[in-house]
Amino acid sequence: MPVTMKRLLDPDSLRALSRGCAILGAGGGGDAYVTLLQVLQATEDFGPVPLVDLDELPDDALIMPCAGIGATTVVLEKFENGDEGARLRDHLQFMTGRPVAALMSTEIGGGNGLLPITWAAAIGLPVVDADGMGRAFPELQMVSFNILGQRAAPMVMCDEYGDTVLIESSDNHRVEKLARPVIVPMGGLCMLAIYPMSGRAVKDTAVRGTLSLALRIGRTIATARREQQDPFEALFACLRSIEHYQHSRTLFDGKIVDLRRETQRGWAIGHVVLEDIAGRDQMSVTFCNEFLRAQRHGRTVAIVPDLITILDRETAEPVTTENLKYGQRVRVVGCSVPPLMRSERALAVWGPRAFGFDEPFVPIEAIPESSPAYSREQS
Amino acid sequence: MPVTMKRLLDPDSLRALSRGCAILGAGGGGDAYVTLLQVLQATEDFGPVPLVDLDELPDDALIMPCAGIGATTVVLEKFENGDEGARLRDHLQFMTGRPVAALMSTEIGGGNGLLPITWAAAIGLPVVDADGMGRAFPELQMVSFNILGQRAAPMVMCDEYGDTVLIESSDNHRVEKLARPVIVPMGGLCMLAIYPMSGRAVKDTAVRGTLSLALRIGRTIATARREQQDPFEALFACLRSIEHYQHSRTLFDGKIVDLRRETQRGWAIGHVVLEDIAGRDQMSVTFCNEFLRAQRHGRTVAIVPDLITILDRETAEPVTTENLKYGQRVRVVGCSVPPLMRSERALAVWGPRAFGFDEPFVPIEAIPESSPAYSREQS
Repeated sequence: MPVTMKRLLDPDSLRALSRGCAILGAGGGGDAYVTLLQVLQATEDFGPVPLVDLDELPDDALIMPCAGIGATTVVLEKFENGDEGARLRDHLQFMTGRPVAALMSTEIGGGNGLLPITWAAAIGLPVVDADGMGRAFPELQMVSFNILGQRAAPMVMCDEYGDTVLIESSDNHRVEKLARPVIVPMGGLCMLAIYPMSGRAVKDTAVRGTLSLALRIGRTIATARREQQDPFEALFACLRSIEHYQHSRTLFDGKIVDLRRETQRGWAIGHVVLEDIAGRDQMSVTFCNEFLRAQRHGRTVAIVPDLITILDRETAEPVTTENLKYGQRVRVVGCSVPPLMRSERALAVWGPRAFGFDEPFVPIEAIPESSPAYSREQS
Repeated sequence: MPVTMKRLLDPDSLRALSRGCAILGAGGGGDAYVTLLQVLQATEDFGPVPLVDLDELPDDALIMPCAGIGATTVVLEKFENGDEGARLRDHLQFMTGRPVAALMSTEIGGGNGLLPITWAAAIGLPVVDADGMGRAFPELQMVSFNILGQRAAPMVMCDEYGDTVLIESSDNHRVEKLARPVIVPMGGLCMLAIYPMSGRAVKDTAVRGTLSLALRIGRTIATARREQQDPFEALFACLRSIEHYQHSRTLFDGKIVDLRRETQRGWAIGHVVLEDIAGRDQMSVTFCNEFLRAQRHGRTVAIVPDLITILDRETAEPVTTENLKYGQRVRVVGCSVPPLMRSERALAVWGPRAFGFDEPFVPIEAIPESSPAYSREQS
C-alpha cells in the first residue's frame, strides 16, 4: 500500500471510507452508515480530522486505540451521548499520566473504522492510518497489538449514562474476560480505549494503511456507480491492484433463504443460508458479529481471517450481519488478507480454531474455484 | 451500645468476633471460620490491629469501606493471594488522590466482619468500630451509606490473579449493575473497596459499634460453653440487655429435611426446610446469601431486615447458608435490629419487597409468638 500523505478527512472521503470500512468489516464492526451520520455531524461541528501516516508519528507519543464493543445489533438502536471520546481520553490520560497525541481504530471494519474520527473531531486530535486487525473481529485479544506483545490494559470502557469502568491486568485474555460481561449492563454496546501505546509500538504492531485502503475501496465503488460501470468488476479490479488483497472473487450469487441471528452475551451470533436464483445451489455463512466461514455442500470455500463479505448484488453495497434480511439478493465475496494477518501467531488468536471450527486455515487462493470447491478431506 | 475505647484486636477477641459476626450475618457475609484463620495468621505476621471508635475519627480522614463480594459458597474454596488489601488501598488512593486513614467493613456479618482486619494488619492501618449494614446483605446498594446519600464510586474490585476493575458512576444502583457481572470472571468472589468517604460522613451514615456488638455476642457464647451453661439462654440474655436487639427468640427447633441451594449470578440462592424432632411441624427459610424470610405453615414469622440466624442446637454455633446440610440439628433464631435499619428509607432498599417478597416488613416483636404466628391477612 502506498505511503499516505497527511490530509484532512472531508465529507466525501468519509462517505467513501464508510463503504470501504463496511467491506473490510466482513459483516461486522457495526453498521457503518449510522456511524457515518455521526462522523459527518462531528466534522461539520468541529471541522475535518487530519489523517496521519504511521511514519509521521513521534516514537514517544501516546496513541489511543479505541472503538465500540458489543453486539452489532445494538449499534442500530442505541446512540452515544457525545462525550464518550473525551471521557475515554481523559480517563486514559489519568491512568497513564501522559497526554494522548492521536486516536486510532482498533478495528478498521464497519462503523468502528469511523468512530474514532468522530471522537477525534470533538477533541481536536488526528487519527492514525492503521488499525489492529485489518478487518473486524469480535474479541479484544483479536488484534495485532496483542499478537505482537502489547498490553491491553489499562483499558477504559464508558457508556451513554456517564459510567466508566477501568480494567488493569497483565493478561490480555483476562481483560477480554473481565470486560465482556460489563457490556451487558452498559446496554449491549459501549465505547472503549485499549492497548494504549507509544508511536514506536504502533509502528511495530499495527496493520498499516488500512484507513487509506478502505478509502480507496469505497471510492472505487462510488466511481463505478457514478460512471454506470459494474461495481463488482471495479471492486475486483481495485483489489487485484493491491498487494496481499489481490485474491478476491465472488463465492456465491443468490438470495437469502434462511437466517438465524441472536443477540447473545454481547454478540450477534448465527448463520445465513443463500440459494442461487435458479434454486439449485446453496451456501451457508456462519457469523459471530463477523462472517467467519462460507460453506457450499458442507465444504469450506472461505474462512477467517480471509475476508468474507456479503454485498447487494446490484449496487455492491455491503450488508452487515445485523442488517441481513430474508429475501435479500446478494453476492458473497471472498478476499485474501496480508501475511501479518495469516501468520502462525495470528492464526492462533483469530484463526478458525479460535472460533470453534474444527479445521485449519486455508488461504482463499489455495481453494479451487470450481464447486464443490474445497473438501476438508483433501486439505 | 457503649462507646468503644481504642484497643487492639488480639487472637481471643478475633475468635469471639468471628462467632459474633456469623450470628449477625444471618447466614451470609461468607464463612467466618475460614476468614478467622486468615485474620489470625495476618495478626500473627503483622501484629494486632487497633479498633477505633467512630468518635475518634478525624472528620477529614479518608475511610475505606471494604469487603469480599460474590457467592458465599466460593468463600470456602478460593483463597486470596494476600495483597488484595494493599491493592484496594493503592487504587483507591490513586483514584481519590488522598491517603486512606482507616479501613471499615461494609458489612459486619460473616467473614466480611473480619476481612478488613486481615488487610488492616498487613498494611498497618486501624479498623473502625462500625459497618454499613449491621448485618449482611447481598447487594452493593444495600448499605446505610447509600440510604443516607453517600456515593458508592469510585469503587475498586480486585482478584487473586492481580487484576483490578475500577468503576466510576454517580448512580449507586448502576455501580451494583456494573460490578455484579465482573464477579463471575473474577471467580465468583472478589475483593472490593467502595463508598470511600470522610470520617465525618462515616459518623453520619454508618451503623455504629457493630464490631463491639459482634465481639460481645461471641464472648457470651464462648463463656457459656466454658461454664457449661445453655449457650442459647446466654445469647438471649445478652441480646435482651442490648438496646434495639432485645427482641429475640427461638423461631424453630428441629432438623434440616430439605435443602435447595444453587450458585447463580454470583449468589448462593435457595431455601431450607426444617422439621421438628417429633415430625409434626415444619419451617421454611428462604435465602439469597443471607436468610431473608422464615415461614411456618406459609405464614411469615420473621423477615428481612430483622435477623434470622440458624445455629447448631447444642453449641449455638451459627451455620452460614453455604454450610447447611441435610440432617443438621439446628435452632432458627430471630432478632430485632436498630431503627436505622428499619426506617422507611432503609426498607425501600433492603426491605422484603427489595427481595421480591410481596409483603410488608413486620417487626419480629409485633408478630405473636404462638404458632401459626403471623398471617399475612392479619397484617
